[in-house]
Amino acid sequence: MPLMKEHDEEYMTLALELAEKGRGMVEPNPMVGAVIVKNNEIVGKGYHKNYGGAHAEIHAINEGGVNCKGATLYVTMEPCAHYGKTAPCAAAIILAGIAKVVTTCVDPNPVTSGKGVKQLQAAGITVRMGVMEDQAKKLNAPFFKLIQKGMPYIIVKWAMSIDGKIATVTGDSKWITSEESRRYVHTLRSQVDGVMVGINTVLKDDPLLTCRFNGGRNPKRIIIDSRASLPLTSALIRTVQQSEIIIAVSKNAPQKKVEILRQSGCRVIETNGDYDHVDLKELFLKLGSMRLTNIMVEGGSKIITSLLKERLADKIIVFIAPIIIGGCGDTSPVLGKGVENVCDALKIREVRHYRFSDDIVVEGLLN
Amino acid sequence: MPLMKEHDEEYMTLALELAEKGRGMVEPNPMVGAVIVKNNEIVGKGYHKNYGGAHAEIHAINEGGVNCKGATLYVTMEPCAHYGKTAPCAAAIILAGIAKVVTTCVDPNPVTSGKGVKQLQAAGITVRMGVMEDQAKKLNAPFFKLIQKGMPYIIVKWAMSIDGKIATVTGDSKWITSEESRRYVHTLRSQVDGVMVGINTVLKDDPLLTCRFNGGRNPKRIIIDSRASLPLTSALIRTVQQSEIIIAVSKNAPQKKVEILRQSGCRVIETNGDYDHVDLKELFLKLGSMRLTNIMVEGGSKIITSLLKERLADKIIVFIAPIIIGGCGDTSPVLGKGVENVCDALKIREVRHYRFSDDIVVEGLLN
Repeated sequence: MPLMKEHDEEYMTLALELAEKGRGMVEPNPMVGAVIVKNNEIVGKGYHKNYGGAHAEIHAINEGGVNCKGATLYVTMEPCAHYGKTAPCAAAIILAGIAKVVTTCVDPNPVTSGKGVKQLQAAGITVRMGVMEDQAKKLNAPFFKLIQKGMPYIIVKWAMSIDGKIATVTGDSKWITSEESRRYVHTLRSQVDGVMVGINTVLKDDPLLTCRFNGGRNPKRIIIDSRASLPLTSALIRTVQQSEIIIAVSKNAPQKKVEILRQSGCRVIETNGDYDHVDLKELFLKLGSMRLTNIMVEGGSKIITSLLKERLADKIIVFIAPIIIGGCGDTSPVLGKGVENVCDALKIREVRHYRFSDDIVVEGLLN
Repeated sequence: MPLMKEHDEEYMTLALELAEKGRGMVEPNPMVGAVIVKNNEIVGKGYHKNYGGAHAEIHAINEGGVNCKGATLYVTMEPCAHYGKTAPCAAAIILAGIAKVVTTCVDPNPVTSGKGVKQLQAAGITVRMGVMEDQAKKLNAPFFKLIQKGMPYIIVKWAMSIDGKIATVTGDSKWITSEESRRYVHTLRSQVDGVMVGINTVLKDDPLLTCRFNGGRNPKRIIIDSRASLPLTSALIRTVQQSEIIIAVSKNAPQKKVEILRQSGCRVIETNGDYDHVDLKELFLKLGSMRLTNIMVEGGSKIITSLLKERLADKIIVFIAPIIIGGCGDTSPVLGKGVENVCDALKIREVRHYRFSDDIVVEGLLN
């Protein structure tokens, strides 16, 4: 029996690795992987490859064919029981003659939640739940957050020198990190639904915010621009056809400017923040209702500071380059009032670090 | 022949590892290791264990005994030829009947430089130079700098949050890093001849600057205190018996205060900087003439900024804690004017990174 459980973890690990392959392609669906095992041999494997395409279980069952009869299916989330973009997986599993299903947790999506398991059990299939549940929830943390809180998962990213500067005193920031790091940022962009920056960053850097290195998917481009002042000559507006531009404005934004931005092809979202501010929480709820699963915020420090202060960020990724910029002035990634005592500082959990060329990247979770 | 050379590198690597064991104990001497090999077997090993004690070669010869006859000695620096604290090693090597000596480079110390090799060759011993010379010079970079430039090797160390702050806006900095990191700082203190801070850091933190965790050697404590304002009630003055305190003052420091500090047991060094400034280069030349091999500068940002600006630092070690402090204000490790363009930033070479608990440490070389 303990041996059996160890095997379960081994096959579920493989299924989780398969699931990971869908990152950036399946959202707002969860990443899901599946492995079918008969007599200790893998007879089928699959993962959810892209939004709207077949689910992981179906790929694995197709590969397994007649060998599915009496086999065990390992799947990283409860099989669905509803007609969505595809037919329900529970029915396909029953039809294939699978004898046992091992999974992690119920689908948090109320359309399925628990129903998939019930259908399987009603058909006489043994179901084991809770195998590597934590890992599965971590893998799909953005999916869980969107379903449970109605907001996208927020990743804050910045690049700084080893003395903690995101720019020089004159505002230059090209390029603090190595080409390898920047290439990875483009990979990250291809894995998120949206990339967000403040209008000051746009006015200073005139960025494209697309994914340019690895042939990946372009994220939606979200600009916090309370006064609707994005220039029509900006690189963003010039490339509005390449991927959607969402402008978040305050309720006091000049309506004429808002109209012009709309006519230029941007989507404009208005929030009810005090004075001229964009209410970030309201914005995220609206972006959540548009089913954006995850957003990477790339600066500047004003937006980052607000996100951290309002505890709206879920993860940070910091690129640290081995250069010293120096200088007095507000060139730090996080500004605002700050904490008075070190013990009150915001703590990063589950810290990981890796390296691109001579840059060190530190990432971890907030909240 | 290529095989032979590979063996040479293998044994020299071992000798360099042995040498490393003397770090913090042998300065201002170099760290030296020695391995004696006969018929492809190691018959003797040794390293210079502490200043004033026997050299590496002598330990290895003593261990090798009669097996030294006809053997090859691998030693990480040219054997000495002069009477210093101990008798010359070259003579002992000849006497032991060593047939061949493999080493890295000549001793930069003019008292020996090249003379050891000549004595060995004159006695009929084959000498091979240049094996792993770079590694040997890196290992003893502080020793080479002191001999060649008359100045100690300067290590700049700071600890900051992931958003680049060495303190909160109110000045709190206890403790940004983990206990594991702080313990390592104490190990580093035990490996250097001096620890240096500015008077502002003393007034703010009232530090001891001793080595307290690992039973290591206490460094000399060097305070940049242009106006000789170190309080007599400070933890430093109260522990003046534990390890020497060196106060660097400007030529304009009030003589009465200087006198009181001297009477309290401190050594006072006056430099001729403009206005009230301590001339750091002049100070380092004076500390070099006192044979301090390496100094770790622990802050604050004023001293660090000056050292970097004047290109007086050789190495930096940055501890990065996974916490976010935030805040506008001069809480950055490096201030001053800073560079205008990123491409002019000071570059760190030979970047290494490691980890203590959740803190990431990045270190590298300057100049």
